[in-house]
Amino acid sequence: MTAPDAALIAATAERLAPVVRRTPLLSAPALDRIAGRRVLVKAECLQHTGSFKFRGGFAAVSALSEAERARGVLAWSSGNHAQGVALAARMHGVAAVIVMPSDAPRAKIDATRALGAELVLHDRAASREEIGARLIAERGLTLIRPFDDPQVIAGQASVGLELAVQASGEGVRDADVLVCCGGGGLTAGLALALEAAAPDLRVRPVEPEGFDDTARSLTAGTRLENTARTGLCDAILTPTPGQLTFPVLQRLCGPGLVVPDRDTLRAMAASFAHLKLVLEPGGAVALAAALFQPQSVAGDAVIVIASGGNVDRAVFTRALEEGD
Amino acid sequence: MTAPDAALIAATAERLAPVVRRTPLLSAPALDRIAGRRVLVKAECLQHTGSFKFRGGFAAVSALSEAERARGVLAWSSGNHAQGVALAARMHGVAAVIVMPSDAPRAKIDATRALGAELVLHDRAASREEIGARLIAERGLTLIRPFDDPQVIAGQASVGLELAVQASGEGVRDADVLVCCGGGGLTAGLALALEAAAPDLRVRPVEPEGFDDTARSLTAGTRLENTARTGLCDAILTPTPGQLTFPVLQRLCGPGLVVPDRDTLRAMAASFAHLKLVLEPGGAVALAAALFQPQSVAGDAVIVIASGGNVDRAVFTRALEEGD
Repeated sequence: MTAPDAALIAATAERLAPVVRRTPLLSAPALDRIAGRRVLVKAECLQHTGSFKFRGGFAAVSALSEAERARGVLAWSSGNHAQGVALAARMHGVAAVIVMPSDAPRAKIDATRALGAELVLHDRAASREEIGARLIAERGLTLIRPFDDPQVIAGQASVGLELAVQASGEGVRDADVLVCCGGGGLTAGLALALEAAAPDLRVRPVEPEGFDDTARSLTAGTRLENTARTGLCDAILTPTPGQLTFPVLQRLCGPGLVVPDRDTLRAMAASFAHLKLVLEPGGAVALAAALFQPQSVAGDAVIVIASGGNVDRAVFTRALEEGD
Repeated sequence: MTAPDAALIAATAERLAPVVRRTPLLSAPALDRIAGRRVLVKAECLQHTGSFKFRGGFAAVSALSEAERARGVLAWSSGNHAQGVALAARMHGVAAVIVMPSDAPRAKIDATRALGAELVLHDRAASREEIGARLIAERGLTLIRPFDDPQVIAGQASVGLELAVQASGEGVRDADVLVCCGGGGLTAGLALALEAAAPDLRVRPVEPEGFDDTARSLTAGTRLENTARTGLCDAILTPTPGQLTFPVLQRLCGPGLVVPDRDTLRAMAASFAHLKLVLEPGGAVALAAALFQPQSVAGDAVIVIASGGNVDRAVFTRALEEGD
């Protein structure tokens, strides 16, 4: 397998156009003041299922053969990929089995179940890959990987094709594009899309402190692992960059940024107050870097991909209380 | 003065098109399940300044003569019209004086001040009309009324022109359009725009319990007043329907709906969970009616105007806690 080429990205975008939301590129004077430059926020939390993951899920499910669709699909996920695959499967009349950690946010577990998927919850200590492999062998399911899949990366690339048009419409041609980064599917897709469509927009991955495998791997020139496994930003705690995604990031992305949880909570509060958007922690780290690390970013404007909004009430309330 | 005609609405829409956000029409399967029909939500909380009021403010300020602009404008407002006028004035280089109650939500006071307006805070017992009249006499300011102004109504009508296109794109031609209603500027503008552009979309005003002056006035055939003056839904507690707006509502709108505060808080929590949108109480009553009074609505689909999102943290946290 290799990362998607321009033809696959274009074909996938065409398949997605009638079903995905073209999410708005928002801004607020108060955020510009905090960051000291224009801040433009692509609101992927408004995508179907509350995160960009629906794009990759739909791309992958819609690319399956009739025989594969008849047998069903399987995904493992902390909750956003789960919902993206579950909705895409339902739209195609395909059965979906989702393997999720039992300590995933309640909002994600409930929403995935409500989309009609069969949930298999597991202890963090268990290997989701092993659980998945057993179910795949038993039932002939097709695995939809969360990021190391050319179709999934091509689906996420549609964010970049939309952004290229929107940024140009805002008069922004030369800017850093900060993106919340777990396994790198969105980051790689975005970078591949912008390489052709807007080469002066520089993609930069943003990660939480303690889960900066991508930033460290980019510096080291080789894929490194995190030691920690659980944290605030549940959506993007992937232990190591993907095999397909990392070479794309090495070739196309600027250095990674790393954000303390305290700033992530502050970014969630700022999004609440000034954008009227609900962001989850893993969907807010890019905004946190734009607002609170302005010295690490170049240009008169900065673009932020606000990648998801599936957050439990208690965590959101904490952000409003602590993030002032 | 009379309500705007189709020519004024069209001319205003053209002036607004390059500056207002064409807000998205959103949906979520979970909301459809609660309401028992398709629910489509026009997210005016994503408009500049966090509410639809920027449309009317920009329409009015951009219609002023050079001489009027040089002297400045004045508005009284509980906070959303304040911000709409303040931003519109700043964009035109016009000085703005805003008369606001001192117990308005902190978020609204701070945001209005941050937009460069001169704030005059007053006690609820004082008459904002008298305070405004004195300042207008002293400084030659032009009053921008919150709803009883043809330009302001024409500005709010742009919501309806956008909605007509979006609803048709969603395959919805025959539905109730529920709108949060204070003085009726948005309701009247919407109804006038849809009268020509989508005559099978029926506009229906929604108000909080205790502030149902519009619903009662429509039933009685004459403008009645509320007795209460303060409540949860600060944005839409206008004591009585407008002189310009009420005849429009009588001619074009269906019966009003009235929502208890408890359901408004539940709607805010549902918007958080399923739309990832921050709504203020006064911007959530229409969604509350769609979700929790389905028997009062006709059709396979219902359209909701989510008119604003300027809410203090404490009130939002209360909605998340109580609105479960």
